[in-house]
This record gives sequence, C-alpha cells and structure tokens, in this order.
Amino acid sequence: MATVQVRPRSDARHQLVTESWSTRPPVPIDEYADYYGNPVKRLVMPQGELNLRYDAVVAVPDEPDLDASAAPQLPVDEIPGELLHFTLPSRYCLSDQLMGMAWELFGQTEPSGARVHAVCDWVHDNTAVDVLEQRKGVCRDLAHLAITFCRSLNIPARYVFGYLPDLYVPPDPAPMDFAAWMEVYLGDRWWTFDPRNNARRVGRVLIGRGRDALDVAMLTTFGPAAFKSMVVWADLDKAS
Amino acid sequence: MATVQVRPRSDARHQLVTESWSTRPPVPIDEYADYYGNPVKRLVMPQGELNLRYDAVVAVPDEPDLDASAAPQLPVDEIPGELLHFTLPSRYCLSDQLMGMAWELFGQTEPSGARVHAVCDWVHDNTAVDVLEQRKGVCRDLAHLAITFCRSLNIPARYVFGYLPDLYVPPDPAPMDFAAWMEVYLGDRWWTFDPRNNARRVGRVLIGRGRDALDVAMLTTFGPAAFKSMVVWADLDKAS
Amino acid sequence: MATVQVRPRSDARHQLVTESWSTRPPVPIDEYADYYGNPVKRLVMPQGELNLRYDAVVAVPDEPDLDASAAPQLPVDEIPGELLHFTLPSRYCLSDQLMGMAWELFGQTEPSGARVHAVCDWVHDNTAVDVLEQRKGVCRDLAHLAITFCRSLNIPARYVFGYLPDLYVPPDPAPMDFAAWMEVYLGDRWWTFDPRNNARRVGRVLIGRGRDALDVAMLTTFGPAAFKSMVVWADLDKAS
Amino acid sequence: MATVQVRPRSDARHQLVTESWSTRPPVPIDEYADYYGNPVKRLVMPQGELNLRYDAVVAVPDEPDLDASAAPQLPVDEIPGELLHFTLPSRYCLSDQLMGMAWELFGQTEPSGARVHAVCDWVHDNTAVDVLEQRKGVCRDLAHLAITFCRSLNIPARYVFGYLPDLYVPPDPAPMDFAAWMEVYLGDRWWTFDPRNNARRVGRVLIGRGRDALDVAMLTTFGPAAFKSMVVWADLDKAS
Repeated sequence: MATVQVRPRSDARHQLVTESWSTRPPVPIDEYADYYGNPVKRLVMPQGELNLRYDAVVAVPDEPDLDASAAPQLPVDEIPGELLHFTLPSRYCLSDQLMGMAWELFGQTEPSGARVHAVCDWVHDNTAVDVLEQRKGVCRDLAHLAITFCRSLNIPARYVFGYLPDLYVPPDPAPMDFAAWMEVYLGDRWWTFDPRNNARRVGRVLIGRGRDALDVAMLTTFGPAAFKSMVVWADLDKAS
Repeated sequence: MATVQVRPRSDARHQLVTESWSTRPPVPIDEYADYYGNPVKRLVMPQGELNLRYDAVVAVPDEPDLDASAAPQLPVDEIPGELLHFTLPSRYCLSDQLMGMAWELFGQTEPSGARVHAVCDWVHDNTAVDVLEQRKGVCRDLAHLAITFCRSLNIPARYVFGYLPDLYVPPDPAPMDFAAWMEVYLGDRWWTFDPRNNARRVGRVLIGRGRDALDVAMLTTFGPAAFKSMVVWADLDKAS
Repeated sequence: MATVQVRPRSDARHQLVTESWSTRPPVPIDEYADYYGNPVKRLVMPQGELNLRYDAVVAVPDEPDLDASAAPQLPVDEIPGELLHFTLPSRYCLSDQLMGMAWELFGQTEPSGARVHAVCDWVHDNTAVDVLEQRKGVCRDLAHLAITFCRSLNIPARYVFGYLPDLYVPPDPAPMDFAAWMEVYLGDRWWTFDPRNNARRVGRVLIGRGRDALDVAMLTTFGPAAFKSMVVWADLDKAS
Repeated sequence: MATVQVRPRSDARHQLVTESWSTRPPVPIDEYADYYGNPVKRLVMPQGELNLRYDAVVAVPDEPDLDASAAPQLPVDEIPGELLHFTLPSRYCLSDQLMGMAWELFGQTEPSGARVHAVCDWVHDNTAVDVLEQRKGVCRDLAHLAITFCRSLNIPARYVFGYLPDLYVPPDPAPMDFAAWMEVYLGDRWWTFDPRNNARRVGRVLIGRGRDALDVAMLTTFGPAAFKSMVVWADLDKAS
C-alpha cells in the first residue's frame, strides 16, 4: 500500500486552474482527509512497475510571502485553545528539550515576527555551508529546528511542505524539488517563514501541513516496494 | 460567481482511477468542503462564454446497492445524536406537515428496511405516468417525497445526487443525466434507496449529500449568467 | 426521549465561571455536538414527573454588542465558501421567496452593516404593537424575518438563541425568557443583530446557533410527554 | 495560565448523571475542544491560591471492557485512512525504533486481539515488580510501551486517560488515582486494553484521548505555578 500527497491544499494562497491525475497501469484510489485536513490518495500497489502522474496548472499571487515582522506574539493565554496543539513537542520537534537554549538565544528579542526572524536567521546562519550544499532534506531539517525553537518560545508553529519554483534571488541552478517550510501563528493568523531560503518568496504551492514531517509525506509505502525515481517539475508561466 | 459540484465524493462505494479538470478560458478556482463535506469548486465567471470540463474514470463494484430490507429501524433514542439533524424538516422536505399521512400509510409496516421499501413503492407507484415520462427533475421530486416520509417516521434520511449509468433493467434509451436518490440510516449505517428507479442498481457515482436539493446542486450561479448547455456522459467499460 | 440545549456555547463572548446540572429523579444523559457545534444533552424520560435543573454563573463583558455599522458587506465571491450555507433558504427562512421584496426595500442602502440595520429597523417597526406585546415567540419570528431578508440580499445570516437579562433601556418589567436574535457575516467576522430589541445590549449568553429555529430548540421531545412548566432565571451580579 | 481536563468525554461507554464545576476564588474559564476532541477548560490563574473543584455522578455499564480477543487485525490497506494517524510514531511512542523488536516478539502471534493481548502480557510481565509497586506514572509508561509495539505492528493505537475506581480483583488498598490505558483499532471499532492492570475492568470513565500523554494532561500550567495537592475521589454507588 502507498499513500500519496501531491494535490495542493485548497486553503492556501494559490488557486488551481487545471489538474489531472492518472496511473499506469490504472489503479483505483481511495481519498481521504487526514487529521490535519491534508488530501491523501491511497492505493494498493500492483505487481510490477507503477507510474503515478499528477499535473496541475496553478495560479499564484505576484506578491511574495506576507511580511510578518510587525505581527505580535500572543501571550499564551490569548492563543486560541485548539492551536495550543502546535506548541507541544512532536516526534521531530522536541521543543521540551530545547527550552533553555531557545530562551537564552531569543528571549531578549521583541515578542513578534522579529523574534521568528531571529530564529530563522540563527538556524540559517549556523548551518554549515556544506550541509546546505548537500541539499537533500536540508529544508526539512531546518524547518524542524526552527519549529522546535518557536514552540519552546510558546509560538504555535507547524510544518509545511509543497512546491516552490526557483524563480527569484538567489538564482539556483539546481533542479526544483519538494520544499519544506513552516507557518507560525502571530496576531490573528498564520504566517509563512522559510528557514531554508530565509527570504520571502513568490510561488509557493502548499500541499500539506502537520506537526512535523511525520504527518506529511509526499509518498509513504507500507510493505515491500522499491522507489525507482521521482521527477518534480515546476515551471513559471508569466502569461497565465 | 458560480459554484460547481462535479467531483465524486471520496467516501462512497466507487473509487477514482483518473480525473482531469479544466476550463476554457482558464480560470482560477477555489475549492472548499461545504457543511456536508461535499467538495465544491468556486469560480468568478469571465465575460463571454465559459466552458467547464471534468473527466474521470471511476471503478465501481459489480454488486448492486446493498439489500437493506432486513436492517432494523432504530428507536429514536438510539439514533446517534448528530444524525437527528436528518430527521428534521428542511426547505423541500416538510416532514412536520406530512406526519399524519406518513403514519397512516406506513405506521403498520415493519420498522425496518421493509418500511422504507414501502415508502419507495408508494412514492413510485402513486406518481402519474406522464410525470415520470417527462423525466426532468423527477428523480429529485421523488427523492424529496420519500425523504419527507422517512423523516416523518423518525428515520434519518438525506438527499444524494450523482451519476447513474443506465446499465441494467429496465433498458432506458434516454441519455444519461444526473440522478438523485436518498440514503437512510438503519441499524448502524446508511443505506441507498432510489425511489425513482425503485431498484437496486450498479454503478452509482456519488457526488453530493445534504438535507435536500438545496444543499447540493451541480451548478449554482450568483448574478447574471445564461446557461447554454450541459452534456453529461457516463459510459460503462467492463474492461476497467 | 428529549433533547435539551441549555449549556452556553463556549465560542461566544461570555465565559463560564461555575455550572451544575442535575435531574430529579437522576437520569443518565448522553451528550453530543450537533451539526452546528451546539452542545446537546439527550435523555430517555422516565415514567412520572421529570425535573431538569441547570445553574451557571457566567461572566459577560461590560461592553454591549459590537457596533457593526461600518463593517462592509462582502461581494458574494469573497464570502468564505463554507459560509454560503447561510445564504440558502431554510425551513423558516424562505429567502428565495422574498428576494424581490428584499431588493426593493433595501437594495438602495449602503452594502454594509447599515444595510442590516435598515433590515432590523424595518422588521422592528413594521410589526404591529399588539404582536410585540404578546411577546411569546416574537423574538423568534422577528429573527426569522430579518434572517430571511439578509439571505435574500446575499448576506450570510444565522439564527441564535440564548439568555438575555433585561438590564438596559428600555426597562422591561416582564420576566426574563429565552431570547432569539441573529448573527450576520460582514467583513471578516460574524456580528450580533437583535431585531426584537433593535439595540446593542449587554449580557447575552449564547446557547445555540443554526440555520433557523428548527436547528436549535431548548427542549425537544420525541414521543408522548406533557410540558408542565419552565422557569428561566437570569440575574445580574455586578460584583462578579 | 492553566489548561484542565477533568470533564468526561461524551463518546465513551459511561453516561453523565449530574456534574458541577467551580473554583475558589471564582475565575472565568474558556472551553474548547482540542485536536482530538477532548473538552478542555482554560483559565488565567489569579495571584494566591487557586482551588478547582469538579464533581460528577456517572453511570457505567455493569459489564467490564468488551472482549477483543477474536477481533481481527486489519490489513494496512483496509485501515480507514484517517486512522493511519495512529500508526505513526509520536513523542513518547517511537514506534519506528521498536519495529524490529516488535516483529521479533509478536510477529508469530495471530493477527487479532490475541496479538494485542500478547503485547499487553509482555509489557505487564517484563516490568520489574518494584517499578509496579512504586505506582506513580506506571500506567502511563506501560500504556506508552504497549502503544509503541502496536504501532510498530501496524495496529492503530491511541493513549487514553480517565478515572478507574478500584472495585474489582485484585483488591487494591491504594487510593484511586487517574489512570492511563490504551485503545486499539481492530475489525471495525476501537477496543480498550489496559497494560497496567492487564484485565478487563468495570467502571472506566474516559476523559481524554490522543497520540500519547503529551496530548492529554489533567493539568498543564504555563508560567510559574506551584502545584500543592490533588485529591481524586471515585466511589461506587451500586444503588445508582
């Protein structure tokens, strides 16, 4: 069995224009929304090779991620109750263990988006260059670390993954891959922060949200299955 | 603005195999789940003609609708609380007004699926032939009437619409259209009943559920818009 | 069987301080949240007399209902998708039938809270005095009419019932009863309007919300039961 | 700030008869349902001592926990999609790390409730007696370990806490405390297993459910607060 998360969530800034899904050979799929409202496709893998294909045209706003610098951190008793869930530790974000370090590093910063920027700066700058260049899974790890610090500081933070076409500075010759970033709750809404790129970006297409990467995986297989290859292709069409 | 319900629900007996959605000209859409969990697409209609296209290959079980004859009607205090919603009157199913008639007609039947069959038989048989032959909207009205009786009898009943290929007896030369039927709650689950065809059928693809037709419409337009034409096409491919 | 809605909803402006629930004789109850998130208690009525008692101390803000005059009516394509539910007709709010009247009466008003005030003024002023003085169920009917007009005008509107201590002008010697009012969605939130009193008030304790009174009833009995009496008591304690 | 979980959940086998909640001094509370549907009360703690009191009379079935021995383990592709959430590792149940051990220990058992009994037996028997006698938190740790094994074996398992009067064998002179156990999904429903007592018991009153103890805590304080004492009192009244 495999679960697949490729369909963009409908509650983000992008809008779907066209989409199509198919498999070779044709396989019936089940669909469901998981605990975090992510759309998941599930299928029983046939013998032999299985090819999954999902194409979509998506419209994104011209404006980059909104600027959260001035958004205030909520006192903990003003955080909406059901969001306290995102201040708790999780499998890959052991915020209870980084509490001391988080307050030492960031306790003096302004309790606002500025504090989250300080977190992202630190996470981004204190990661060895060679790790960054290795790329594979880096955005995931950096997101986990930044989320951990935010929760240690009583800021609700959740893990996000999606597509992020490499359109803007810094120009990046590497092929597009899935990307991971985070959302934090400040003031009265969720804001996007991206510790890997540490910049506001255009063109995010959000697929999944959860406590950490455990909750959202593009592809999860149960039982024996060999992963042969994946091609992710994201291109910008100014005209559309 | 228009809202469109064409994507099959993921919690019915069918399974999606492939699908594609597009519009001409390309238009960004929003998607959301309504109060009844139906997937809805919403779009702002551009000037001029707008063409919407949705194609899907869907796998359906070989077996017809399950036989609910023996399923017991629940005493009202054993109906799960949140389902009492579907025993209340609604815009097109004024069950408070048909209470007396319902108990007079069906009060002596066995409190089980047999009672619902009696309702469907009565609704089906007491509808003038010419009305049935006119077809347009008939399945909708018959579903509403049967739902109304069921609610009057304290049986949770909801309105369903979807595709229903004309595969089985009686052979029907008329082109396929959207179809409406109902689901009633007996024992510990929902069961399908179809007052229009009054037969268990193969191949239902369920799109929407609600209290009545008000909650589920294939196409709803807000503001000036002229509806030119619709083609619904459903074909059976035994091979898939 | 009976369903009872007396516990205040937790997502309104009041806050619970103490509460207690008991019955005489003691009867086990089931609790569930209905389709609109209202907390419902359900019980099987024993033979003989049954006495239900619910007491609560509730803290309410000193400020009256917020002033919604300047809040803008949303264009229909900007209304959040899942709220379109509250623009549809329902059993007691046949907004499809009052469409013409609504636009004729209120089409020239500013598309904002001012329009809803115009609706409330009209509903309040065009109701014969003797009807108002009869009291029983008046707030319910006036709320239904105002909701109907709002939906005809594409403004999401829902029915609300709760407790409303008679604290402010106009002084009212009549005993406190359950009260019904409405909430409408303008700008980015729901606002309280009260066609019966047609004034911003202090002290609302909100129990239930729904499409109309069908969805929210303090007491609903299924099967034979005689209603003997009800005492609702709401008092203001400035000290708490 | 503190969050408090003491109110029994409404979707378990017990039924509420009476209840009352109060604090000294009186403090307004907010209520919300968390991600797992648990009812939570939240309050800002005043200066000085704060006393919280919750009393309830609850009716429980005479029968002990249902016997799950024969319930079949579902093949992973038949587990309802949204329940896969409870097969994932969480903060205190690192099932990805015990995968090998789990299959080695329990892989040969029958894929049914018998397998879960084998897990509970092992967890119960392999815990040093002195640990069991120390009591404090034992039920919590044993539940976590058994949950971890179940998830390693692809059986959905969730953490549960509540009240469990010590009524039955073995007689236990120690005072009643909160108890933790687990629920696993077999066949088409959740079943109760209790690795601490390793016996089917009468009288469980279920308060909270979640992935592990992180999600459900009777009392959580944010900021400086000293915990003075807690008295949990649960008594059996055969008459009621």
